[in-house]
Amino acid sequence: MKIDNSPARGTRDLLPASVAVRDHVLESITTVYRRFGYQRIETPALEDIARLQGGQGAENEKLIFQVLRRGLPDEVAAGTPVRDLIDLGLRYDLTVPLTRFYGNNHAQLPSPFRSLQVGPVWRAERPQKGRYRQFHQCDIDLIGEPSVLAEAELIEATSQALAAVGLKGTTVRLSDRRFLAALAEAAGLPESSQDGFFIILDKLDKIGWDGVRSELEGLGLPSGSITAALDKIAVLQGLAPAKIGDALADALPNMGAGAIEDLATTTACLDRLAVDQSLSWQFDPTLVRGMGYYTGQVFEISHPKMRSSVAGGGRYDKLIGRSLDRDVPACGFSIGFERIVDLLERGTRRDTIALLAETDVPTIEILATARTLRSQGQPIETIRRSGKFGAQLTRLENAGFAAFIHLRNDDGAITRSEMRTLGRPDPVEMPRPL
Amino acid sequence: MKIDNSPARGTRDLLPASVAVRDHVLESITTVYRRFGYQRIETPALEDIARLQGGQGAENEKLIFQVLRRGLPDEVAAGTPVRDLIDLGLRYDLTVPLTRFYGNNHAQLPSPFRSLQVGPVWRAERPQKGRYRQFHQCDIDLIGEPSVLAEAELIEATSQALAAVGLKGTTVRLSDRRFLAALAEAAGLPESSQDGFFIILDKLDKIGWDGVRSELEGLGLPSGSITAALDKIAVLQGLAPAKIGDALADALPNMGAGAIEDLATTTACLDRLAVDQSLSWQFDPTLVRGMGYYTGQVFEISHPKMRSSVAGGGRYDKLIGRSLDRDVPACGFSIGFERIVDLLERGTRRDTIALLAETDVPTIEILATARTLRSQGQPIETIRRSGKFGAQLTRLENAGFAAFIHLRNDDGAITRSEMRTLGRPDPVEMPRPL
Repeated sequence: MKIDNSPARGTRDLLPASVAVRDHVLESITTVYRRFGYQRIETPALEDIARLQGGQGAENEKLIFQVLRRGLPDEVAAGTPVRDLIDLGLRYDLTVPLTRFYGNNHAQLPSPFRSLQVGPVWRAERPQKGRYRQFHQCDIDLIGEPSVLAEAELIEATSQALAAVGLKGTTVRLSDRRFLAALAEAAGLPESSQDGFFIILDKLDKIGWDGVRSELEGLGLPSGSITAALDKIAVLQGLAPAKIGDALADALPNMGAGAIEDLATTTACLDRLAVDQSLSWQFDPTLVRGMGYYTGQVFEISHPKMRSSVAGGGRYDKLIGRSLDRDVPACGFSIGFERIVDLLERGTRRDTIALLAETDVPTIEILATARTLRSQGQPIETIRRSGKFGAQLTRLENAGFAAFIHLRNDDGAITRSEMRTLGRPDPVEMPRPL
Repeated sequence: MKIDNSPARGTRDLLPASVAVRDHVLESITTVYRRFGYQRIETPALEDIARLQGGQGAENEKLIFQVLRRGLPDEVAAGTPVRDLIDLGLRYDLTVPLTRFYGNNHAQLPSPFRSLQVGPVWRAERPQKGRYRQFHQCDIDLIGEPSVLAEAELIEATSQALAAVGLKGTTVRLSDRRFLAALAEAAGLPESSQDGFFIILDKLDKIGWDGVRSELEGLGLPSGSITAALDKIAVLQGLAPAKIGDALADALPNMGAGAIEDLATTTACLDRLAVDQSLSWQFDPTLVRGMGYYTGQVFEISHPKMRSSVAGGGRYDKLIGRSLDRDVPACGFSIGFERIVDLLERGTRRDTIALLAETDVPTIEILATARTLRSQGQPIETIRRSGKFGAQLTRLENAGFAAFIHLRNDDGAITRSEMRTLGRPDPVEMPRPL
């Protein structure tokens, strides 16, 4: 008899070694953000379907797991639209729930409010290697802070969080949507086409400058304007931080003073951080970020071992207003939790000692011995002797035990051995830093 | 404009103070079980609907949130059964996923396998005060240990976990399904009616002895047999532990020697534990436990402040066999996570210090000061001065800050005050033990 015990298509079971890595990442991140005053919140997995389909989720709205209404008849009447059968859906991100949460609870929250969310989201994507239909997101948001103190703090805290997880050698890239908007405007693009401009520029990594140029031509921009815009980007790339402000003012007189001042402040803060904590950063005029709701600075953090960024975020001052009767400034960072977990080595070694008890040792003596050993601070797992001794030791080693203690019954006298190490002598450790 | 930001019906948002209590409970429980060798696993929220409706979940199967198949046409054809529209559901407990998990992954798991699961489950219950459609369960299981070492260890570990959370003064109650089965058999009940007998006895708390008697009569049992059975229960209630074995053998000669020996072992272990760690326990012949899958000893832990038990479990040697081609002995304990969280006081005090910065302090100086203070080990949250000073201090106090540091710009010189406490002088603390 073969029983199918596989998890639902596109989902996965997490075994102890995987959960240990995930817990390590989660705990490291949480510890760092707590030092900055961020507090964890939680929202339900289910949201009303109308909220999830409100347009904020872009392409993700096509991937919602939809939940059937309760109390339906066994058979559906002819011509019933499927949408009438559903009322809830599983969240596809943590941003839609956060805006609802803030709208619902802002009266009880401090201002500014520093929020940390870590939790599962669901997307009915075509299953493929390394991608799952349930995965974790990790979002950090500062709501109610209008100045770039938010941006600079989030970059500092997130760089530290990534270092705590074991990701050293990261680089921060910074840009501003207002710079990109001014660039598009100077090139002669009407405001209504700016989103298209952003989307094309965002593809630079994949399609290169020539690809960007030809797609911009497809938007109806004259070749001269495109050249002028791309030339400006080229000039700004790789400028020394101190020169960015002047260069921007020169290149784009239509860019507001506020945006330039904000960039000056953030870059000064990052420069100081580069000295204090060896932060590595750059202004990147090609950085766009995918979501449409950003209104100011945007940023990403990359790591040499990864092709895509490990974290990204930006300011979104007009989003909270969709769930309140007024706008509230906000800035957020999203850490690629699953990407980071995938990067870390899985250590199977545990700090638990096996108490290997011969079968003739009474249960009460096994438990009492384990209790004594635990009271000395040592995690102890009791295991009955079975099969050949050497083979069982190999099994213990494979299960990640670093050592064992042998418990025997010698004619009624219960004796235990010294602790004996198993297999490789290397120390017990958590996943290694990269 | 009034926007509805409430969470989906029957669900709730968790604010920082609530999450802090939940994290405290979770961390305390996890720390204790880790000392016994238990390891966390995770399974997906979604399971195939056929698995969830396999009969193991009893009444809970009526409360499943069902998920619509992807790729359906916009309109459903006439006469389509609703069940054809769904393929997945949200898990209603952690036991169905655990049996599937073990069946799917047993080749990679040690034997015995000590599992710790904490996570959300979903039930479409009628919303009512204090009950939610998404709530956490916390299950601990020892799979592959045939002896009552499992039972005794689970009771020890769980009592310690509850004490670590702050629940002192708990009492363990112990019984055995094999005792109850022998009692039913001796009373003349055919095996097929035993489940009915268990269900009625389980209601003793609510309907009293007379109620139990009359419902047993409804099962068709002669009055004399009922009296004999209830008399036997009365005799066994409150017996000294040392006498339970003999009393059971006397009262129920049809009860197997194995069950009596198991009770003798467990009670000896609990007696030792009563000495070592002041465990309080009793044999309770009226204890049944709700689920049908128990095969041996069952147990609950109660706390004087709660009407229902805070944890319960038992042996279920025939359940894993439903997802494997062989039976695997197993024993588990489930901790009433939400009930415990509800019991604990919510402390709003935080260990974070507010760095209150006057508006003329440059952002770079605010961040650098915060960085210096954090490097001394102190969590620091930066907050801009706004409104009247005293009113802002009150807001900080209400937000849970215990102290603040004032950052000023005196003609270009940045100065910070000593740390000053806010409000009540009592120390920062986690939820108080009961």
